[in-house]
Amino acid sequence: MSSQLEKLSKGIEMIVPVNGLAEKLKEAETEKRPLIIKLGMDPTAPDLHLGHAVVLKKIREFQEAGHEIHLIVGDFTAQIGDPTGRNTTRPPLTAEEVKINAQTYIEQLHKVVGTERLTIHFNNDWLGKMTFSDVIKLLSRATLAQMMQREDFNTRYTNNIPIALHELLYPMLQGYDSVEINSDIEFGGRDQLFNNLVGKNLQESFGKKNGQVVLCMPLLRGLDGVMKMSKSKNNYIGLTEPANDMYGKTMSIPDDLLEEWIQLTTDFDEETKVNMIADLKNGKTNPMDIKKKVAFNIVKQYHDEKAAQEAENFFYKQVQQKGFDSKTFEPVCISNLSFEINSSVKLLDLCATLIPTESKSSLRRLIESGAVSVNSDKCTDTNQLISINSGTKIKIGKRHFFELKE
Amino acid sequence: MSSQLEKLSKGIEMIVPVNGLAEKLKEAETEKRPLIIKLGMDPTAPDLHLGHAVVLKKIREFQEAGHEIHLIVGDFTAQIGDPTGRNTTRPPLTAEEVKINAQTYIEQLHKVVGTERLTIHFNNDWLGKMTFSDVIKLLSRATLAQMMQREDFNTRYTNNIPIALHELLYPMLQGYDSVEINSDIEFGGRDQLFNNLVGKNLQESFGKKNGQVVLCMPLLRGLDGVMKMSKSKNNYIGLTEPANDMYGKTMSIPDDLLEEWIQLTTDFDEETKVNMIADLKNGKTNPMDIKKKVAFNIVKQYHDEKAAQEAENFFYKQVQQKGFDSKTFEPVCISNLSFEINSSVKLLDLCATLIPTESKSSLRRLIESGAVSVNSDKCTDTNQLISINSGTKIKIGKRHFFELKE
Repeated sequence: MSSQLEKLSKGIEMIVPVNGLAEKLKEAETEKRPLIIKLGMDPTAPDLHLGHAVVLKKIREFQEAGHEIHLIVGDFTAQIGDPTGRNTTRPPLTAEEVKINAQTYIEQLHKVVGTERLTIHFNNDWLGKMTFSDVIKLLSRATLAQMMQREDFNTRYTNNIPIALHELLYPMLQGYDSVEINSDIEFGGRDQLFNNLVGKNLQESFGKKNGQVVLCMPLLRGLDGVMKMSKSKNNYIGLTEPANDMYGKTMSIPDDLLEEWIQLTTDFDEETKVNMIADLKNGKTNPMDIKKKVAFNIVKQYHDEKAAQEAENFFYKQVQQKGFDSKTFEPVCISNLSFEINSSVKLLDLCATLIPTESKSSLRRLIESGAVSVNSDKCTDTNQLISINSGTKIKIGKRHFFELKE
Repeated sequence: MSSQLEKLSKGIEMIVPVNGLAEKLKEAETEKRPLIIKLGMDPTAPDLHLGHAVVLKKIREFQEAGHEIHLIVGDFTAQIGDPTGRNTTRPPLTAEEVKINAQTYIEQLHKVVGTERLTIHFNNDWLGKMTFSDVIKLLSRATLAQMMQREDFNTRYTNNIPIALHELLYPMLQGYDSVEINSDIEFGGRDQLFNNLVGKNLQESFGKKNGQVVLCMPLLRGLDGVMKMSKSKNNYIGLTEPANDMYGKTMSIPDDLLEEWIQLTTDFDEETKVNMIADLKNGKTNPMDIKKKVAFNIVKQYHDEKAAQEAENFFYKQVQQKGFDSKTFEPVCISNLSFEINSSVKLLDLCATLIPTESKSSLRRLIESGAVSVNSDKCTDTNQLISINSGTKIKIGKRHFFELKE
């Protein structure tokens, strides 16, 4: 049991109450039953990204340890839409659209969690049946002051930004889902802590002895390196994105995000992660090389190793092409060189002729390390024959860009 | 029309918006339709008192001018009760209890308003049919900041006194009643202004061009002379109270409430009211005498003239009895007087013997003005024969109390 606790609690940022997970695991063992893990889903936004995967991977660990995942599709409010009409991008969904989105979501979900011990609920099944009088009784179980502990409500109220009355209901609806499925654990990002504690309090108000334990995973910052990864900020990598996009987007993250991404997005074993982070900190390894490993690992998780390799190749070709296109090439007149037009010359000889100040041995190293390209193709063979034609472009190392001219 | 406006707006403390009543009357005239006057009723508290009557009398004027009263029995929330369970004195009412209470209320109502042009609604007919999704759409039409303009919410929130979430709904429910009956005017005390304006705003949010006009009548202070008359403060006179209680309670109000009560509780014509208030202010008339007129008038309105006369008689007998019982009587030995024991003596002669310093003519005036009592019976006949017995008690004016002894 304590080894399960140690394994499952690893990487969790916050457990409320602190000893809650230990007690729930003990309870499950005593009562010989699995824990019920609640996972909510907004059917207006069915796309999962690496930020969601941080939570889903932890949930998979619980699933693999024998516990049950209860996915709640929030179709009740999705079918209402935004009643203020302010958010025109969120019109109400039809029941059919909710179903399609839920299916999309579940397909993505299975990129992380297994199909065993997974139950799917639609909260319209209970919320849609509530009468006005049920609503009043539900709302009587919380106070305005409790709702105002939610940071965004409080900030908006203090700054005179309108809060429509129905918005105060939403945390209660989400909380009531916990009552219905009798969850033991609810996961969420740190920003969901308030909502999830409403669920715990409601369960206890409805007579459950110990309400759900709330587990928070660290938030993953998105591609911009500042904001939490989210679709609306367009700083995300979707779980179903093509391998090339996943790889390329990962390569675009700022270096100072790397440690966080190694921890939260890769599936390297612990030792590998520790070593990578150490290498990053001591400056021994180029951050670009570590980023390549992270990008490769992410693609491998959501596609496969072959796709990861292809994506890496594609990325380098593209980047080099881009490097080529964006550079200014120094024109070199072929008649000033010692080669005939349309003749073929070994790469190393061509490089030595172009940069006579550089030793042949250092040029050989450059070629073999992949730092030399001809017409955007990386050439690592010093003996490769290059045609001496007008328009041929050659990049040598980081600073030398030549274009042959007649 | 302008004479109707002048008459109907008389005595109204506040009209929101200021020119709203004038416009509504014009609208009614143009469209040749009556105005719809909304009157809400809480079926958990069916007892009407003089405070309610202030509003009801003004409503009667509208009714008599051809407009329609729409009474809304708030059975929806009454059937829910106080869901917090904090208010154990307000358990939910059954449909049957609501019906009985509504009947009680309507009987009392007819002590003030007529039976013509009166429609009765039960708001459970519309609120009870609302689904959760309807509730959300309704609540989206107002903001938290708007609700917090209500003084008691604001005070409680500021002082950390809990406001249960469902309490925030109640003004919206009351307001939605206005949408359903499409009211033109809602009456209420000054303390209802907030709720009534919610109704106006909701109507406009639902597409009505000019929402209901809100009319506030002055608040009537209760028997204590400080608080608004209300059942919970036990400072009220119920419209169905026995005549003697009505009379006696009115006599108990502090003098400085008299002007307010002349204006708000009596049905004297305007000139009489003005004169009474002038008398009160210039000190020509004893406030007690004005109070008697007010008490008499109130009983006459809610019972009849005969009952008012009887209540006055009863009150004086009781008060005098009480006066007798609470006084210290000066023992007068019969043998010191010039009368035989068990003889009968004229009242004026007895008084003259007991107070030899007073002139007979002034004693006669005292007797005739009702200031002399024998054994708690007022005696206004100077020739009435009094038995000279041990134990006979005589009160003469305000300061002389004698008891005959052998």
